Formats: sequence, C-alpha cells, structure tokens
Amino acid sequence: MLDDLARDLDPAAIVTDRDMIAPWEVDWRQRYRGHAPALLAPRDTAAVATIVRAAARHRVSLVPQGGNSSMVGGATPPAEGDALLLSLRRLNRIRDIDAAAGLAVVEAGVILSTLHDAALAQGWRFPLTLGARGTATIGGLVSTNAGGTQVLRFGTMRGLVAGVEAVMADGHVHDGLAALAKDNRGYSLDQLLIGAEGTLGIVTAATLRLAPAVVARGTAWAGVASPADALALLRRFQRAGRAVESFEIMPADTMAAAVAHVPGARPPLAGTHRWHLLIEATAGSAEEEAPDALLERVLAAAIGDGLVGDATIAASEAQADAFWRLRDSLSDAERARGPAVQHDIAVPVAAMPDFMIDAAAACDARFPGTHASGFGHLGDGNIHFHVRAPGGIDRDRWYAEDAPGITAFVHDLVTAAGGTISAEHGIGQMKRGELARLAPPGRLAAMHAIKAALDPKGLFNPGKLLAPHDPAP
Amino acid sequence: MLDDLARDLDPAAIVTDRDMIAPWEVDWRQRYRGHAPALLAPRDTAAVATIVRAAARHRVSLVPQGGNSSMVGGATPPAEGDALLLSLRRLNRIRDIDAAAGLAVVEAGVILSTLHDAALAQGWRFPLTLGARGTATIGGLVSTNAGGTQVLRFGTMRGLVAGVEAVMADGHVHDGLAALAKDNRGYSLDQLLIGAEGTLGIVTAATLRLAPAVVARGTAWAGVASPADALALLRRFQRAGRAVESFEIMPADTMAAAVAHVPGARPPLAGTHRWHLLIEATAGSAEEEAPDALLERVLAAAIGDGLVGDATIAASEAQADAFWRLRDSLSDAERARGPAVQHDIAVPVAAMPDFMIDAAAACDARFPGTHASGFGHLGDGNIHFHVRAPGGIDRDRWYAEDAPGITAFVHDLVTAAGGTISAEHGIGQMKRGELARLAPPGRLAAMHAIKAALDPKGLFNPGKLLAPHDPAP
Repeated sequence: MLDDLARDLDPAAIVTDRDMIAPWEVDWRQRYRGHAPALLAPRDTAAVATIVRAAARHRVSLVPQGGNSSMVGGATPPAEGDALLLSLRRLNRIRDIDAAAGLAVVEAGVILSTLHDAALAQGWRFPLTLGARGTATIGGLVSTNAGGTQVLRFGTMRGLVAGVEAVMADGHVHDGLAALAKDNRGYSLDQLLIGAEGTLGIVTAATLRLAPAVVARGTAWAGVASPADALALLRRFQRAGRAVESFEIMPADTMAAAVAHVPGARPPLAGTHRWHLLIEATAGSAEEEAPDALLERVLAAAIGDGLVGDATIAASEAQADAFWRLRDSLSDAERARGPAVQHDIAVPVAAMPDFMIDAAAACDARFPGTHASGFGHLGDGNIHFHVRAPGGIDRDRWYAEDAPGITAFVHDLVTAAGGTISAEHGIGQMKRGELARLAPPGRLAAMHAIKAALDPKGLFNPGKLLAPHDPAP
Repeated sequence: MLDDLARDLDPAAIVTDRDMIAPWEVDWRQRYRGHAPALLAPRDTAAVATIVRAAARHRVSLVPQGGNSSMVGGATPPAEGDALLLSLRRLNRIRDIDAAAGLAVVEAGVILSTLHDAALAQGWRFPLTLGARGTATIGGLVSTNAGGTQVLRFGTMRGLVAGVEAVMADGHVHDGLAALAKDNRGYSLDQLLIGAEGTLGIVTAATLRLAPAVVARGTAWAGVASPADALALLRRFQRAGRAVESFEIMPADTMAAAVAHVPGARPPLAGTHRWHLLIEATAGSAEEEAPDALLERVLAAAIGDGLVGDATIAASEAQADAFWRLRDSLSDAERARGPAVQHDIAVPVAAMPDFMIDAAAACDARFPGTHASGFGHLGDGNIHFHVRAPGGIDRDRWYAEDAPGITAFVHDLVTAAGGTISAEHGIGQMKRGELARLAPPGRLAAMHAIKAALDPKGLFNPGKLLAPHDPAP
C-alpha cells in the first residue's frame, strides 16, 4: 500500500521514521499506546481520497488524527500494528472567512486557537473554546461534537457546523460545505459525521458559523446554598436574555483546593458559601445590554430575596481572568488531592441539582472512604463527577481494582437519571465497553447497522466507539 | 395483518370504512392519489410499535401521515394499494411543558397551532410557524425538517428539536426525548430521523425547545433597488443583533399583484420601488432593545445613505397584520395571474441576489414568453421561484409538456449555484426523480445504504425520497 501511495503522494505525506511516528502512537495522557507502521500526512482532500481508496484496495485500516488531544483514546492506533495513522494536520488552511455572512470554511487540521485569531481579525468570533484550544483541530472538534464553556449560549459543534466535507469509505468526497440555511434533501450526512469519531468518514473541512466579536464581557462570582438555588438563578438569567454563556458550579471544598493550588490566588468572596458559581455574560454589539449591568441587576435582586448569599463582579479584565484561572485549575487541584476517577457525564439540566447531591451521597455510601463530588457546566447539565480514593491507599491497586466498579456505579446512576456517560469527550476506546453495556440494544444495533452501511469493510478508526464483538444488528 | 392487529389494538385504531379513508388517500393539492385498504390510527407509542412489528411479520408497507399537508406527495400512499396508511393524528398529547427549562415534550399528532397556544399559555413560544399551522402536525414537521418564516433567528426543526422518540423498523422504540445539552454517544439517530420523511422510522414524539414569548414586535416595509441592496440591509440588521426574524423580499410586480388580489389592500409605500421588503423583529424580554427602535435606527441610517429608497414601520398591530396579509397572499396572487410552475429552492444567502436576477433572466431567455421571478425568505437564501406560462396558452398541455423541462432547467441552475432543489418541502414523490438525477452519486448511494441499514425490508413510506430503482450502494 505504501508503495502504491508513494507514486501518488508528495514524499512528505508518507512518514515511516519511527521517531517521527512514536509521539502520535500514544495519547497525551499516556493511557493508551498503539503501533502504526506508518503515518500518512496528506496536505489536501484529494490526497486523503487517494489514501482512502488505497486503504480499501489493500484492506488496511486508517486511524484519523488531529491534535491527538482525545480524552478517551479516540485517536490512538490499535496495538496490533495493523492500522496506519492518518494525520490531518497538514490540511491546515482556512479556505475562506466570509466577513459579510459570518461563515468560515476551515480545513480539518486547523488548530482551534488559530481559527479564533483569524475570526477576530475580521471582527468575528468562533464561539467554542476549551482547554486544548492550542492543540485541538477542527476535524477532531467536528468528529467529537466538541462542547466547552460557551455551549449554554452557542451550542456544541452540532449547532455551529453549517456543513462538512469528508472522504467516505468508497473514496468519494462528500461536499456539504455550501452553507444552506434550509436544505431538505433527505438524510443529513453532515449531522451523521458530527460526533462519529472518524468511524464513518474522514472529515477534511467544515463550514463554521461565527458570532459577532465580543465588545464587552462581564464576569461574576457568586455563593449559593445549593445546586438547586444555582439552577434557580440560571433560570432568572435565561429569562432576562441570551447573554449568559458560562454558568459554572463548584463545591466549597473544591474551590478551596483550587485557591490553595494556584499561586497567589485568593477566594473571590469573603464569607462562607457551600457552593460557588462563576458566571460570564457577553455582548456582541453596543446595542445589547452591558453584561455588567445584566449581572448587577439579576444578582442584586437574587441577593435581595436570599437566593444568592453574596456575589462580586470582576472590576477588571485581570480580575475576570483570575476568576477563570481558579475555575480552570479545578481539575489539577483535584488531582493534587490524591487518586481519583473522573466522569464526563450529563443529565437533563433540570435533574442536575438533585443528581449532584444524591449521586455523591450514593457513591460515598457504596464505597466507604471515598469522596465524590462534581463541578462544571451546570448550565449544560454537564459536570465532571469525580470520586477520590480513600486516604493512604495503594494508588495503582485502587485504579486497577476499585476504579472500574466505581465508574460502573456512577454510569448506572447517570443512566437511571436519563443522562449520558459521555457529555463531551466521546466514547473512543475508553468508554466502548460501557456504551455496549448501557446503550439500549436497539440503539446499539442501529449504530452497528449505520457503521456497516457506510464503512462496510470496517477500515475507519477500528475499535473506537463500537467494538466488533458488540451484538450485530 | 388486520386480524392480527384487531387482537392487540383498540377498535378505533383500525379503519376500513372507505369513506373514512378516502380523504387521506389524496394530497391536499389533489396532485397525488393513492389507495390504502386500511388506515391505522394508534393512540400511543406502544400501539405504533405493535403495528410496525405486525407490518414486519406480514411484510406490509406503512405510509406515516400527520396533517396530510405535504407539498410533495410525501404522505400519499402508493397507487398499487399494497401499503397501509399509518395516521399519527391520535397521538395528540402534549406530554409536558417544562416552564422552567423552556422545553415541551409533544406527540407526533399534535397540531402546530395547538402547541403555539399551549406554549403561550405558559409564557413561552414555539418559534416556528408556517401557513399550514392549523393542519400540520409535529411528527410531519420533524420528518420534513420544517422551516417557515422565523428560520433566520431560530433555525429549522433540526435546531429546535432536542430529542426524538420513534419506532424503528425492528419494532423497538428509540427514546431520545431526554433533553441533553451535551451528549456524545456516537451517531445521532435523532438528527437522522429529522428530515427523513418517515423512511427510517416512525416519529411518535419530540422534545422541542421553546423561546420566551414575544413581548414586543416591530414590522417594517421597505423599498430597495435590488436584491443586492436588500442583502446589504440584512447584514446591517444582523450586525445590530439577533432580533430580526423575518426578512422577506418580493419584486414590485408580484407585490402589485398581491395588492390587487387582497380586498381593500393598499401599497405600504407611496413611491415606486423595484423590490419590496417585509422585515419583522421581536423582543422576548423588556431588556432587549425595542424592535421598533431597532427598525427605526437601522432603516433611517440606510435611507440616509441611499441603501433604502423608503420605508415605513407599522404603527399598529393591525397595520403589521396588513403587511403580513400582503406577504401571505403572494402565492395566491401569483396563481391568479395564470399557470405557473413553482420551485422551492435555496442557495447560499450570499449567492441569492445574483441568483434572483440571473436565473430569472436565463429562464426568460430559454423559454420565450414565460416570466420568471422569485419571492420569499431572502434571509434564509430560500425563495419560491416561479415561472409563469406565456399568455393564452393551453394550461393542461403546458403543465404536461413544458413544465417538466422548465423545472429541470431551474434545478440545474440551482445545483450549479451550490443550492438545493428542496429548501423546505422535502422530496416526497414529486422531486424523487430530480434528486436521483442531480444528487452526487456517492451521496445517493450513502442514502440508499442508510435506508437499507435501518429499514432493511423497505416498509417505511415506500417510494418517497428514494426510489427502488435508484443506483444501489
């Protein structure tokens, strides 16, 4: 197959040097290791199609990879060494930014922060961001239906993608890039490719919707007595308009750990509060209500009637950044407190306050000595639910012997609450078994049928999302 | 099969009385006639599943039907009489309106205007409407990814549906009703069912996103020199915020025909303008800029620099309604001018001004004596493009002999402009041949593969969207 490709591709597109390949055979958290005899790095869509057709002829699997920042081993090749890495990183052109329409046509390998900068230079904003913005690529963000911290206002990639270009398993290029506000020609291949984790087609580009650049932002910190009060406050903001784009919740002890973890950090509020909120609102034009005024108005009323204990609005960009630094360090601060298992889960927003309390209590009772709690995107019904190991425990043994049972227990609770075992990170290889265990059989069968229909030889990202040994349709 | 079902269903669910069936065997425009030996009318999802399983056992096709307001024969049974009608009209419960979250769980048979009223009673609005709102049902709106007049602000059903419940071909119930803002468990069956025209599963209910009820609306009429100027004005509104939800364009002669057609109507503007615009903005809370103020501000500036010739803002609800009456009578007024073929097409918004001019000129040149023009949702890149027959022509002969060639010509132009031959109405049986002619072969093959994967016996809405004789995957 490589000999075949050597005739058709530029020399830089075929990498067999072990030192060049090795970094991409392991995920960034070093949890999954695989092996690929070669890494293919095409620089345009036509070259991707050439590779896919060659792979079909030779029955060789392809593992598409962008920034390799998957949290679930979604871009790591299988250990057997029978698949090739297909890096999309050289497809790194922003083909077009239509500054009148607010649309960008972006290739799969463009890094998220690069798109942020390019949009801003034209008075626009791509309103999706996340911690890995300096690494994650557009193709990966499309393929994992990425979310992040602005979903409350702008939705996930599913809502921000106006069209997808992808190479399908038969080698044809699906061109869905034309931004049609209305298009009713049957099944949406674009929507099927979003969140498919590279198992149905190789995403090579996408048309993305932009939002007006932020002209003002307001950032507040508030203390409340319970997640239920936090949700009541969120509802007040939502009735007041669409300006709030982040609504993050954390329990007092997690917040305290973050304050201790970040050098020079101080608690935003003076008093004691059981739960803390970081709230951010933005305006995209001067005609919208100033975000600080909105925060002031709603929070003052909520303090007045006792819904909120105390609140403060960042007086400067520096203070707003300090609030966010605390929020962004929660995961690290939690990790520093000892071994823990994390869960990226969501339930319907209305169910989240009870879930946060009840699921943590159920975990603590079922696994004595552990401590469960959650923090994150309350506005999306999506929290990072973590269960910390008992003190003084053997770390490796706990991860190997106890953690899987804890995860299964948490996933059962989530499923019973009508929720999802993967809110943001996808399934990859990490959650494949849990998906097979918990998904309704009919749904799993439908997914297998779709996979078999669009990738009949099973060559796209094998072993991710679906396992060959799951029940057949 | 009916004997089987008689044991399991309530008697009202099986209709064999010819007089009761006959009205549902023909589409409302009387263009398509079919025959069904029975009409099945289950009253809950379990009964739909019972019917689907019986149909699979007996290999009998089912034609799902809601309000029977399809514009493309999408709900009319085949003439051969080998399929049963499956009416969803008795699944007519609004299961829940969550007034805190702004979500409604609505069964397939609920009529759109019923949902409008129920949402409004709780301070909410379901922000999608169209002419058939007193007839069209939620199941049909989901299955055709309906649009309407508020897509500019709120999107089509694809964006308004938070989850779908459907009976799949193997008889299992897909329950996607939980409203999860983030859910990354692989392929979105919900999105696949939206716009599938009942060919992949029988939609029985949906969770729908609501918007705050309108507290103020502003409606303006403006005259401009060209579609390009109209688009420039739209861009100004879009930079000023998200308040504009309708932006409708019509040429002067179409507008004049509507004025003549509507008893007592008067032209909204005194002078002569080549193109007319109806613009509507709304506010969902008192904190948003008043719609009239927004219209005044943007239109005054546009008149000042010559982009807009003249404009007027409705001074009362009655005047706003009068503006809409003119807009809503355009189709009737056009029909009254003589035989014409209509086309429900869209191109990227940025391409629409040129398309409106160039496609009309190309049609007029290619078919001497005809008159082509378009009106409609400029903000969505979606117009109703109609070509009127030459005067004094034999109506039936023109429809039979000339119209198909004209339609093919228009569809070729649309396809060349990166557009769609179906913006709003779907494919049904009317556009099936054109879809097969114009869709890229790979896309058509992918759609056939998906159909075969999820409905392997081909029993759901046969002959709609895809034809058995299209190229196989």
